[in-house]
Amino acid sequence: MKPTLPDVPDLHDAALAARLQALLDDKTKPQGALGRLEALAQRIGLILGSEAPLLREPQLVVCAADHGLAAHGVSAYPSDVTWQMVENFLAGGAAVSVLARQHALALTVVDCGVRHAFAPRPGLVDAKVGWGSADSSKQPAMSPEQCARAVTNGMDLVRGLPGNALLLGEMGIGNTSAASLLMSRLTGLDIADCTGAGTGLDADGVARKIAVLRQVLLRHAQASEPLQALAALGGFEIATLVGAVLQAAAERRVIVVDGFITSAAVLVAARLRPHVLQRCVFAHRSGERGHILLLAHLKAEPLLDLGLRLGEGSGAALAWPLLVSACAILRDMASFSSAGVARRAAHAPV
Amino acid sequence: MKPTLPDVPDLHDAALAARLQALLDDKTKPQGALGRLEALAQRIGLILGSEAPLLREPQLVVCAADHGLAAHGVSAYPSDVTWQMVENFLAGGAAVSVLARQHALALTVVDCGVRHAFAPRPGLVDAKVGWGSADSSKQPAMSPEQCARAVTNGMDLVRGLPGNALLLGEMGIGNTSAASLLMSRLTGLDIADCTGAGTGLDADGVARKIAVLRQVLLRHAQASEPLQALAALGGFEIATLVGAVLQAAAERRVIVVDGFITSAAVLVAARLRPHVLQRCVFAHRSGERGHILLLAHLKAEPLLDLGLRLGEGSGAALAWPLLVSACAILRDMASFSSAGVARRAAHAPV
Repeated sequence: MKPTLPDVPDLHDAALAARLQALLDDKTKPQGALGRLEALAQRIGLILGSEAPLLREPQLVVCAADHGLAAHGVSAYPSDVTWQMVENFLAGGAAVSVLARQHALALTVVDCGVRHAFAPRPGLVDAKVGWGSADSSKQPAMSPEQCARAVTNGMDLVRGLPGNALLLGEMGIGNTSAASLLMSRLTGLDIADCTGAGTGLDADGVARKIAVLRQVLLRHAQASEPLQALAALGGFEIATLVGAVLQAAAERRVIVVDGFITSAAVLVAARLRPHVLQRCVFAHRSGERGHILLLAHLKAEPLLDLGLRLGEGSGAALAWPLLVSACAILRDMASFSSAGVARRAAHAPV
Repeated sequence: MKPTLPDVPDLHDAALAARLQALLDDKTKPQGALGRLEALAQRIGLILGSEAPLLREPQLVVCAADHGLAAHGVSAYPSDVTWQMVENFLAGGAAVSVLARQHALALTVVDCGVRHAFAPRPGLVDAKVGWGSADSSKQPAMSPEQCARAVTNGMDLVRGLPGNALLLGEMGIGNTSAASLLMSRLTGLDIADCTGAGTGLDADGVARKIAVLRQVLLRHAQASEPLQALAALGGFEIATLVGAVLQAAAERRVIVVDGFITSAAVLVAARLRPHVLQRCVFAHRSGERGHILLLAHLKAEPLLDLGLRLGEGSGAALAWPLLVSACAILRDMASFSSAGVARRAAHAPV
């Protein structure tokens, strides 16, 4: 059983790209002097199809689920922390809660498969596919049906959200393991190069984690197609994120990718619909070992490099004002002619 | 004649540093998971002397002046661009104007010595010491009296501003040359390592610029003390910034340093009062060649690395929300006990 995926066409528009570049070059600054903020303005302009892009009603979606593999000590924290942190997100005390408030990002927490019964309340979406994924060292993390349901849930979720920008976050004890597994399988990189300390394993812990993950990959050696790999090795929150990314890309929303786990979801989505990557802004290079290689694989140039390794969407929220700035530069800066500023001399005086 | 400089005492407070670290470690996240944002929170807490730091009424001060040395073709732009850009700042069309609006930063433009008569208006401070500095290839850029007056102007300016955070910006065609000269003289690095393309010289232009600057250094070989070097090689806006930095440091304001020129002003200030550096947050690593080495010399770890090379305070403004986030983390995040989240397992299950 496969989910029905939306088309994600090529955004290529040479005329708009040229107009955006001409606009940026005519702003009252030396050409290129705003560095990567100018490339960001270009990208957002192309995604939104506008020479005066305006980001509206940004949505920060945090997808949460538990992982059967966590029973093998692949995380420094117990699985109960997943539901406790979901409560913390909703109570407003987590890092992502604080940062979302600072930047007026609408925060939606999605129960994709947490091993806990939550009381319904505003800001919490019930998209529970199961009570934690299965232990992928013994069986696929998800059945094909569960995986398809989670992907479809992510698509439905985004379809129902307002705005033109989606910031991705996640929570799930054990989910750096799932991300490492997907990365290794879909990129062909050795699992040791894809695996880090997660929430804080020591060197012995990382070595044990790699050994566990290597066995998981062997068990699911046949799961090579993106959706097969996602079902065998992923998790409910990652599959939901894959659906969210595909739908957001189809709708030409700006997708702000957080850290290692959300990047792994983007990797899966990009294997299904390659032009997804045209819609992505990578917020930061995290301190998690696999992330540097994964970003390089995706040819992504992240905006921040602050050694973050928290997830939750915290890095996406921290980078958000840079996207707003990039749009403001395009919309609000004066041009040389409008401001009466002299252009550079054709030949500098001597 | 020397300006009267304020004391800038050592901020060292081991007890407060330990309390800040304990607070950060008790927040609902793995220890250190917010990376350099945690070090930033520590620094701001120590500057403001608070476990719950709150940044109030941030002031972005853009100091502008002209440079006699600009007649030698050391910039790709004519000197008139200095006053034209001052008008653009005040009219709200420059990058720094747009970014200051985005982040609700109070913008003050200071005429420290522009070769132009401005009509008085709100947001413009008249602290003009001269009609552009002298050509430092022929004589000192400033007399000792002018230099002292500009430094004192900067101190007076900051004394009159509200708030507890000062963001530094500058404008002055030719001022990357003055910054390179000061850097070379005060660090001992060769002028070629301190000199870059500024607003956009080509390789030949940079080579000519280096040759001009090398001659300037030879002419002022005796100017080795910080204030001597500042007078001989600097400019009115840089001297005003030196005073602003010293006064802000004495008042324990958080100082947000922008790019190459403001970093050179901080270098001069730090040679006069070394503990100035404890109060500084370096906003970004610019694309200007000398800046990387200057930051390394100051043992500064900038927050952003976006290839900016505009000045004006634009990088300081772009980094500003990260400072706000760092304070919000300390003030508003829940602790493990308050949120009922389990701490990490002493021994991970196997």
